[in-house]
Amino acid sequence: MNVLIVYAHPEPTSLNGSLRDFAVQRLEAAGHQVQVSDLYAMQWKAPLDAGDTLERRPGGAPFHPSLDSRHAFENGVQSPDIVREQEKLRWADAVILQFPLWWFSMPAILKGWVERVYAYGFAYGVGEHSDARWGNRYGEGNLAGKRAMLMVTTGGWESHYGPRGINGPMDDILFPIQHGILFYPGFDVLPPFLVYRTNRMDAARYQATTDALGERLDQLFTAAPIAFRPQNSGAYEIPALTLRSDIAAGQTGYAAHVSEAA
Amino acid sequence: MNVLIVYAHPEPTSLNGSLRDFAVQRLEAAGHQVQVSDLYAMQWKAPLDAGDTLERRPGGAPFHPSLDSRHAFENGVQSPDIVREQEKLRWADAVILQFPLWWFSMPAILKGWVERVYAYGFAYGVGEHSDARWGNRYGEGNLAGKRAMLMVTTGGWESHYGPRGINGPMDDILFPIQHGILFYPGFDVLPPFLVYRTNRMDAARYQATTDALGERLDQLFTAAPIAFRPQNSGAYEIPALTLRSDIAAGQTGYAAHVSEAA
Repeated sequence: MNVLIVYAHPEPTSLNGSLRDFAVQRLEAAGHQVQVSDLYAMQWKAPLDAGDTLERRPGGAPFHPSLDSRHAFENGVQSPDIVREQEKLRWADAVILQFPLWWFSMPAILKGWVERVYAYGFAYGVGEHSDARWGNRYGEGNLAGKRAMLMVTTGGWESHYGPRGINGPMDDILFPIQHGILFYPGFDVLPPFLVYRTNRMDAARYQATTDALGERLDQLFTAAPIAFRPQNSGAYEIPALTLRSDIAAGQTGYAAHVSEAA
Repeated sequence: MNVLIVYAHPEPTSLNGSLRDFAVQRLEAAGHQVQVSDLYAMQWKAPLDAGDTLERRPGGAPFHPSLDSRHAFENGVQSPDIVREQEKLRWADAVILQFPLWWFSMPAILKGWVERVYAYGFAYGVGEHSDARWGNRYGEGNLAGKRAMLMVTTGGWESHYGPRGINGPMDDILFPIQHGILFYPGFDVLPPFLVYRTNRMDAARYQATTDALGERLDQLFTAAPIAFRPQNSGAYEIPALTLRSDIAAGQTGYAAHVSEAA
């Protein structure tokens, strides 16, 4: 199978760099084809702006992030760096986003990859948008049938990210990425691979970490994804896009969007 | 008083641009001094990398995001664009982060402002770090005594971001920013100013929106902040940094970190 790793760390000799190299070797040894988008090495342009469209909309209209993205995608006038990443996503059977958690989210350079590569018509604005159907998203879309997984490192302790930890639960911190960025255009999202307390890494712990990562990579195409509820299968009222009253009755917040029965 | 607006939208004639201009005028008319960091106009460098340090750590050690940030901050060898923004933060009595919500977080260019300006020793790594005291953060730090507020626009409907809305509750989506980026180095964080369904903005709704924004700006120095629990006032076990069992007993998730009694 084809695996794309989108990797965002500035230093190749870092823990992240070592885990990236380990992942590539493990996946290739299992017979997979692997491509790595090493965003720092590629000097990926992070900010979404008018330069992302080679030829602007007719009429001299001011730049508009989604309308210009739609124009560029539909008319084949996207910046070539964006097109290359979209091609990699089409090629991939599984996508791994690998990054250190900086200020409780992904690094800016990776956020800019999402904003620019996720064009209107490619990752959003797909399918019929009406009061009866709110597009092909959250479980449907152009990336449906592919798998995705996060590989995330953080200096904090696991307890700091626990159910009552001061930073908030890790599941909640990652929800906007796993649900809002990966499930949104159709990916099946696997549970994340997490490494805490990265400044306390010795040889024994590194070995245990790569052992665990290796197991997760071996199960990349067989493990059960997170059971996020699809938008268009009856769980949500449309167009309000709120959970139907009998689904996760009385429950609020992120966890209500994961099916218990899965 | 002194107000810094950190503004992240690529198009000056956008709704965000109009709201930014309105905010500047309203604050100046009230007698405040206002500076705007217009990140797109400044061509702000988004990615945190080795170039942020004018002179690297001795000994040829590989680049390390936090160790090099600490070295640069302590030795006065930070990139000048970072120093200028830190000076603006020191000058400010209140800071407004203004941005469109892109993929359930801030735009990459603003995330890169946070990552680079929030140096080790300036916004994190402040105060004693031991098993008895986990630094001056979450309510304490170099930015304590200042206020902060988000101004956020989104194309989605308010119901999509409600307690059972498909995107997750807006309070939860903004928690990593309001708590993890603003409360962390000491800001008192005001409730956010939110504009939904931005593609349905006509003259009447724009008038109502600026009326509401004007009121919020008039109360910038008097409104009650969100009652996030300070780290070092007894609510948390240290070093586990989990809520003490008698605080928000039985509650988990983000909301447990906001005091009910405030």
